[in-house]
Amino acid sequence: MISYRKELWFETPDRMNFVNITPEIERCLAECGVQEGLVLVNAMHITSSVFINDDEGGLHHDYKVWLEKLAPHEPVSGYRHNVGEDNADAHMKRQIMGREVVVAITEGQLDFGPWEQIFYGEFDGRRRKRALVKIIGE
Amino acid sequence: MISYRKELWFETPDRMNFVNITPEIERCLAECGVQEGLVLVNAMHITSSVFINDDEGGLHHDYKVWLEKLAPHEPVSGYRHNVGEDNADAHMKRQIMGREVVVAITEGQLDFGPWEQIFYGEFDGRRRKRALVKIIGE
Amino acid sequence: MISYRKELWFETPDRMNFVNITPEIERCLAECGVQEGLVLVNAMHITSSVFINDDEGGLHHDYKVWLEKLAPHEPVSGYRHNVGEDNADAHMKRQIMGREVVVAITEGQLDFGPWEQIFYGEFDGRRRKRALVKIIGE
Repeated sequence: MISYRKELWFETPDRMNFVNITPEIERCLAECGVQEGLVLVNAMHITSSVFINDDEGGLHHDYKVWLEKLAPHEPVSGYRHNVGEDNADAHMKRQIMGREVVVAITEGQLDFGPWEQIFYGEFDGRRRKRALVKIIGE
Repeated sequence: MISYRKELWFETPDRMNFVNITPEIERCLAECGVQEGLVLVNAMHITSSVFINDDEGGLHHDYKVWLEKLAPHEPVSGYRHNVGEDNADAHMKRQIMGREVVVAITEGQLDFGPWEQIFYGEFDGRRRKRALVKIIGE
Repeated sequence: MISYRKELWFETPDRMNFVNITPEIERCLAECGVQEGLVLVNAMHITSSVFINDDEGGLHHDYKVWLEKLAPHEPVSGYRHNVGEDNADAHMKRQIMGREVVVAITEGQLDFGPWEQIFYGEFDGRRRKRALVKIIGE
C-alpha cells in the first residue's frame, strides 16, 4: 500500500471564497503514482470546506448569497460563539458545504463525472489556512 | 488490495427523486469479494447526491418539501447560474444532502445500522446520469 | 492491510446533544496500530451524525438554535413521516451535519488541524444508539 500526504495552503483576500484545487490534487496523484485507491481531501480548519461542484462564477455567486441567507454573518452578536470571535456563521456554512471529499482513483486518474471539480471553500478568510490531501492505494 | 469499480445509471421521470440503490451496492460487494474494506458511492453529477437515510415514503415527501423551502427552484431568474440553465437550486440541494457516502465493509457485508439504506438523490432529473461505486479492500 | 472495527454506544439525556468522541477514536487508533491509512467514523442511525468541528459550548448552543430554525421539531404534525414517529426533523438535521467523517491517519495519529474534534451529534436521543469506527491501513 502506498500512502501520500500533502498540505495545501491558502490565504484568501475576502471572508468567503472558493478556490479550484483540482489541478493541485491531480499533481499529488501524479507524484505518488497510485493507480487504484482513494484520495481524501479535507479542510484542516473548522470554518472552511472542501467540496465538489461546478467551476462557474454565477453559481459561486449564488452559493454565497444562499449561504449568507441560511447562516448570516450579521448580527455577529446573535451568536454565543462570538465572544472574541466573529465567525460563528462560518462554522455553519462549513457544515452545509461539508468538511471533506473522498474521490476514487482509477487507472491513476481522479474518477470524475463530466463537471466535477474540487474546491477549497473559505468562510473566514484573510489568514493562512490549510487543506490536507491524503492518498492511499496501490 | 482488491479494487473494484462500477457505474450505476439513472433516468428519473421527475426533477427530484430518491432511488434506493442498496441492493445494487450489495451486488457489487458480492461480485468483488472484498471482505474488509471501504466502499465509496458518489454522484458523478453535481446536481445529484448519494446519501444514507430511511426508505420511508413520508420522509421522502418531507425531504422534498424541506429542500424546496431551503433552496427553491422558482424563481429561476433569481439565480445567476441560470443563464441557459434552470438548475441552480439543484446544485444547492445536492450540497445539503451530500455528494457521497463511505461505508465500512466487514465480513463481506455493508456494515450498517438497522435502518441505513443508500439512496441516489436526483435534483435535476429527466436525463441519464450516473453514480460511481468504488470498493477497495481485501 | 490491517482492518479494525469498533462500535461506540450512546444514550444522551436530551433530544439534541453533541458528544466529543475524539479520545475514543484515538484509543481505537492506538489499539489497532495502524500507522498510515484512513479512519471512517459514522452514525449507525439515521437521526444522528458524526461531524468535525470545535469543542466550544457557545458554538454548540448556536448550532442547536440554527438547526432548530432550519428543521424545526414542532409542529410534529407538519411532517408526513411522523405517523407513530415524531423525529422527521432529526432526519433533516442529520443531513445538514452529515452522517460520517473520514480522517487521515499519518504516523499513527489522527492527521488533524489545530481545532478539529470529532463529535457524535444526536438529534433524537434518550435511547441507546451507536456509531461505527472502521480503520483500514498498515
